[in-house]
This record gives sequence, C-alpha cells and structure tokens, in this order.
Amino acid sequence: MNTVELIIKKRTGKALSKEEIIFLINSYTKGKTPDYQFSALLMAILLKGMTKAETSHLTEAMLHSGKVIDLSSIKGPKIDKHSTGGVGDKTSLILAPIVAAAGVNVPMISGRGLGHTGGTLDKLESIPGFRTDLSLKEYKSVLKKCGAVLIGQTKDIAPADKLIYSLRDVTGTVESIPLITGSIMSKKLAEGIDGLVLDVKTGSGAFMRETKDAIELANSLISTAKAFNKKVIAFITDMNQPLGDYIGNWLEVYESIKILRGEQKGDLLDLSLNLSGAMIYLGGIAGSIKRGVEIAKEQINNGKAFEKFVQMVELQGGSTKFIRHPEKYPKSKFITKLKSTKDGYVKGINTFQIGMAALELGAGRKTKTDKIDPKAGIVFKIKLGGKIKKGGVVAVLHSQSMDKINTAKEIILNAITFSKQKTTKPKLIKRIIK
Amino acid sequence: MNTVELIIKKRTGKALSKEEIIFLINSYTKGKTPDYQFSALLMAILLKGMTKAETSHLTEAMLHSGKVIDLSSIKGPKIDKHSTGGVGDKTSLILAPIVAAAGVNVPMISGRGLGHTGGTLDKLESIPGFRTDLSLKEYKSVLKKCGAVLIGQTKDIAPADKLIYSLRDVTGTVESIPLITGSIMSKKLAEGIDGLVLDVKTGSGAFMRETKDAIELANSLISTAKAFNKKVIAFITDMNQPLGDYIGNWLEVYESIKILRGEQKGDLLDLSLNLSGAMIYLGGIAGSIKRGVEIAKEQINNGKAFEKFVQMVELQGGSTKFIRHPEKYPKSKFITKLKSTKDGYVKGINTFQIGMAALELGAGRKTKTDKIDPKAGIVFKIKLGGKIKKGGVVAVLHSQSMDKINTAKEIILNAITFSKQKTTKPKLIKRIIK
Repeated sequence: MNTVELIIKKRTGKALSKEEIIFLINSYTKGKTPDYQFSALLMAILLKGMTKAETSHLTEAMLHSGKVIDLSSIKGPKIDKHSTGGVGDKTSLILAPIVAAAGVNVPMISGRGLGHTGGTLDKLESIPGFRTDLSLKEYKSVLKKCGAVLIGQTKDIAPADKLIYSLRDVTGTVESIPLITGSIMSKKLAEGIDGLVLDVKTGSGAFMRETKDAIELANSLISTAKAFNKKVIAFITDMNQPLGDYIGNWLEVYESIKILRGEQKGDLLDLSLNLSGAMIYLGGIAGSIKRGVEIAKEQINNGKAFEKFVQMVELQGGSTKFIRHPEKYPKSKFITKLKSTKDGYVKGINTFQIGMAALELGAGRKTKTDKIDPKAGIVFKIKLGGKIKKGGVVAVLHSQSMDKINTAKEIILNAITFSKQKTTKPKLIKRIIK
Repeated sequence: MNTVELIIKKRTGKALSKEEIIFLINSYTKGKTPDYQFSALLMAILLKGMTKAETSHLTEAMLHSGKVIDLSSIKGPKIDKHSTGGVGDKTSLILAPIVAAAGVNVPMISGRGLGHTGGTLDKLESIPGFRTDLSLKEYKSVLKKCGAVLIGQTKDIAPADKLIYSLRDVTGTVESIPLITGSIMSKKLAEGIDGLVLDVKTGSGAFMRETKDAIELANSLISTAKAFNKKVIAFITDMNQPLGDYIGNWLEVYESIKILRGEQKGDLLDLSLNLSGAMIYLGGIAGSIKRGVEIAKEQINNGKAFEKFVQMVELQGGSTKFIRHPEKYPKSKFITKLKSTKDGYVKGINTFQIGMAALELGAGRKTKTDKIDPKAGIVFKIKLGGKIKKGGVVAVLHSQSMDKINTAKEIILNAITFSKQKTTKPKLIKRIIK
C-alpha cells in the first residue's frame, strides 16, 4: 500500500478500508510513515470525515497498537466512565468509590489537565503519596482488592494514541469527531471493560461548545463502543458553568470528600449520582438507571462510598490523613474574596475563562513543563440564574501569589455577565442516549 | 503569529491575510516551521481553497523567498510561455527561436519531466554539450546575444517553491489550484518578464483532465499575473492525444527542427504558431494575435527561426552538428513498428498511458535517480478521427531493449480505442482567455 495514494483517497472523500487504516496506523506507530504525511492525512480526515465503519477500524487499529488488559481474573462487571472534560468536573473521584461500593468494578485510566480543563490524575496527585503510575500488575491488584482503581495511561496502552494526539495538538487537527472517538475509545477499550458511561459536555467550558456537536460525538462514541460489543450510555451534560463549587486540584478532592460524606447537594451531586446510577445499571446490579441512582445514594448514606475512597487512596499509596481530615491540608498563602461590582441575576459565565483563571492561579499548566500548585484554585460562589448583590462574594481565590490573584480576578469578572431581569438556570442533563 | 492558529483559521475556511501568508512561507522556508505543520496547512489549502487575493499573496511570498532577476539592462520586451505539461509537448523549443527572431526576448526557466510528461530541460540535454545550468550572469549574456535562453530553476529562484513542491509531492497535496498557481507564477515572475502566455492543457494526457478545471486554473494564473501587472493570455488546449508525432527527448528535438525548417504541418505547428503569435502580440510587435501568427510564420519561412535555434544551442554550449544534420544522431538499438490488430477509426487515446509507454522505453524517469535514454521514444503515427487498417502502423518504438519495447507495445495497444463509425478530431485550441 502507498501512503500518498491513501491520503489522496481520503482527501477526495472516499472511505478507507479496514486494511488501509490498519496499514496507516501501524506504519505511523512504527515510525515508517513520517509526521508530515500523517499530519496531511489527519487534516484530510478532519475535513472529509470518516464513516462509522472507518471510525471503528481506526479505533481498533489504535487499540491494537498496544496491550488490551485482561481483567478476566477479576470477578464481577467492569464499567468505566469517560468525560470529555470541563471545569470543576471531579465526578471520577466521586463515582469510582460509589460504584465500587455498589459491587461494580471501576478500572479507570484517566488523563491530565488539558488547556482550561483539569485532569483526574493531577487532582489525585494533590493527595500526598498517591501514585497514578501503577504497573498493570499493581493496577489489577488494587482493582481486585477494592473494586476501583484510577491510573494514568501507560506506555503499553494504545501507544498510537499518544503519538497521534501529540501530532494533532501541533497541527490544528484536534477538533475531529472520528479522531476524538479513536483517541477516547482506543484507551477505554484497552482497559478490558464490559461497558462505558459517557459524559459528553457542552457549553462555554466544554471542548464541544454546541449541543449538536456534543450529540454527534456521543453518537460516534456509542456506535464505536457497540461495534466492540460494549454496553454504553451517553449523557449530554451542561458545561455552561463550573460543575460544583470548587476548581483546582486539592480543592476538588476536598469537594469530592464532602459529596462522598453526604455534606453537599447541588449539580455535582446530581450528576455524580446519575452517572453512578448508569454505571450500576450497565453493571447489571440495577434494572434501570433510576434504580442505579437509588443504590448510589445508599452508598453515600451508609458511608460505604467514602470508606471505599479511603481504601483506594491507601492502596494507591496516598496519605489518608487529609482524606479523613481535609481541614489539615496546607493552605494557600493568599485566600482572597472576589466581590461583585454589580447587582443582578447571573446571565452568562464564560466557563473557559474561569478555567483559565484557575490555571493562572497555579492550578494548571501553561506549558508542558509547568509545575502545578495543588492548593491553588477557585471556590466559585455563584450559579447561572442566581442573584447577587453589589459587594456579594463571587468567588474565593487561592494562590501563592497576589499578582496571580489580581490577574485571575480580572479574568473572572470579565467572564461573567449579569442581567436586571431574572435569568434561567440551564438543564444539567440535556439528553441521555443509549 | 502562531502557526497552529493559522492552520485552524485556514481549515475553518477563513482567508489568511497577506502578513499571515508571508509569515507562514518565510517561517517554513527558513526551517522554523516543521514539515508536519506545513503539510497540514497544505491539505487545508487544498480542501478549503484560497481567494484570488490569498493566491497573489502566496505567490508574492514564494517569489520573494528568492531573487527576482533584473533584466532592465536588456532592451526590448521580455515574454515567456508556460505549459502545464503534456505528452509530446515540445513547443518551448520551437517558439523560443521564432519569437526571438521576431524581436521579442524569451527568458525561459523550464522544468524536467514529471510523471508521464516530458521536460524541456531533458529534451535540450539530449543535444550533446547543451548546458541548462547556466549561471544568472550567463543566462543574461545568452539572452542579450540571441534573444532567447532556456535554463533550469536555479537555487536563487523561488527556493520556497522547491521546498513546498517536494512536500506536496509526498503528502497528496499536488492538485490544488492556488498551490499550483503559486508554484508556477513565483518562478515565472522571478524571470523578470513583462508578459506571459499560458498553455493550460486538458484531456487524457494533461494534469487537468477536465476542461472546467483547466479553465479554473487558467483564471487563477491570469488573475495572479494581473495582480503583478503582467500582460497575460491563456490558451486552453487539447491534450487528448500526443502533440505532434514524436515523444522522447531527442525525437522531440528532431521534430522541433523539422517544424523550424518548415518541413512539417499539423497540430504541433498550429499550436506553436498560435502561442508564438500571442507572445509576439504581448511583446508589442504585432497588434493582434492573428498578426503575431503571421509574423511567426515569416520567421519560419525566411529561415531566421531555425538559425536562431542554432545560435541558442551554440551559446548554451550544445553541438550544432546534430541540429544541422539530425540524421547523424545515434540511433536506438531497436526501432520497431507497432501494427494495428484492428480496422477502424481512432476513437480514444489514453495519452497518460502513451506517456507511460515512452517512459517505459527509457524516455523518462521512474525514480528520481533513473537515467534518461535520450534516443528512446515513440513516433506516433495515428491521430484521433483518423482511419487505420489492420496491419497499419500505429507507432514506431525506439529503445535499447526489446523487453521494454514489448512492454510499451502492450501499454499502447491498451491505450487506444477504435470505432467502426467515423470519429471526430478534437478542437486543438478550446479557448483563449485574456
């Protein structure tokens, strides 16, 4: 097969065969196809699209560039969740222990912060000692012992994805539904799961700003999951404001602890329960998502979910001291209130900018080599549709630097619009697609 | 400026500004932008197009990546011709001396064979001693002495084009009208010309198979030439059969000599006279193309065109012995007739395949390092609309190898279709666009 001919085939809008896609992925992964040819192919895929069949073949080729973990030695259903990423989205930390407490294994391979969004691994690593770099043997061992494990992508898992993602990042080819599908699903399928719950976010803080794009991505992910005989449910959820109240690595662990202890209500709890319910349903423990949600609630109320979290942290090398006593965690040098300069109802939140403000405070990386400050972040005090008075607290900012706080304050104030008229709050779960 | 943002701008269909295009071309030419980013950009340009303004800016940026030759020291008009390439197209060799004899300077920078098409440089180099690698000083000197010069692209001329063309060739991004326009026009504008005649070929032996694509390319070339205040005329001409009767390097020089000596009529003479006429008209020597054609005919009839050719060959270091006595040129080991296996009218010629057959015989390169056999080629004896009897001669094949001849015979026979009904011959000049 000839790479240039295959690039031309794709750019003229024709569908590539399974053999052709396997050839392209293998040849690139083995270093036989140069970056400049593969990036031209990626651009052609972005602009000409891929059929459902092509997307599945792409996923399969990327999956088989590495190991598929064999979890057959572990009893019971294995269900994971994937979120497309947002601001304040810490549901993985909450649902893994809830679902494990309900008897469903959660073998989760997560990512780091990307752009304005936080990453599960960065959040967990704010817990002193917590290891996200377990070997596959350790990964299985933790899963066997407590039913939940949260690690980062290893070298063995879908190496094609790592290579392709790096190239997409620097060639303007990130926003492609088939390429996003291949990237997500190749890693998730490598986990050895039976089913997957998808949380596809839409709105000002999501990668998919428009709901129609989120639905298109969800459908692509679902059709690919089904092509591999995996059970799957997708939630289209709102990301027009931060999820929950806390943004920043330790701050989000802290909020997860509050949720797991039954100390906080609101959008984060609601979404965590729904996603957990769907996972429990896919795992066969409940007959419906609704029944799954009830079971999830029980795990919080009876304390099992929190204890499962403590157990998981301990098994992954983390100190449980701060989990049981989060008030003892080191504090930022500056903890400063941002007060409203206006009266009115909250009309719009540019959530992307809120994420950027958190990053500015030290909660994320501007360049690949930046170090994260685990304590830094924002406690966000307002929600869409809510009312605020001039002088009321919009957010509390945590940082080691007053300069950073001042920069973040300005970003946040510019990101929020107010209205004299009453405003509506967005629907949290916009759609469930099976 | 950020390369990734500019790639995204282009792939979302927005027009790049002049400054952005200059940044991209300069950054790539200086090695600051890696190939993998530039190839993604090229694919985005191919699939999303460029406006007339963008195409002019691209051309200008590519032009200014190198030297623009200053021909102000040479008196009189300077007019060149560019052909998009075909099979048997040796008009450059014919019109340069005709037009120079008529008093118009022809400073011509030509190319080598590409794919199934021949290259002017390869043809000229079949003349022993002929140098196509003149320095710019020598180039000007020859032009000053005889009014015509034919050389290859130097390192100083549009280096961006050389780099970009190599990348397009291996990334499936050749067939883009703005990129083709930039490539052609940056080199032609670097010659320091006042005007340009374009021969845009269409049909089975052309890069643009469809007439509508040829017209689109012609319009793009014309609008770019005009943006640089150059006089321009484009001919859309037929390439559904080889031009003239001879294909192969020396064989085409030989046919050019016959035309310049007034010994051959037909499509090659007609097209050469029309293109020459347009050049003479653009040079201001004639008041119309028609009058230019008459002047061109005179240059053949009075022997001046042929003598100009001899002078140019001599000034460029070539032996004039074979120009004056072409019958003395070395002959191929095998010169074999290909006879028709059918009776009928010639209905179709896959001219691409005829070019490939010539290449098979040794007249072209299959890989970049292949050596050309200057003697090899085809004398093609049939034309569309013509009648042939079973056993009649279709072509005479010249090669050093009988194996190659047998392969070429099969290619040629498969490339021709016959009909019992009378067939029509195509119109040679389909359109003239000013």
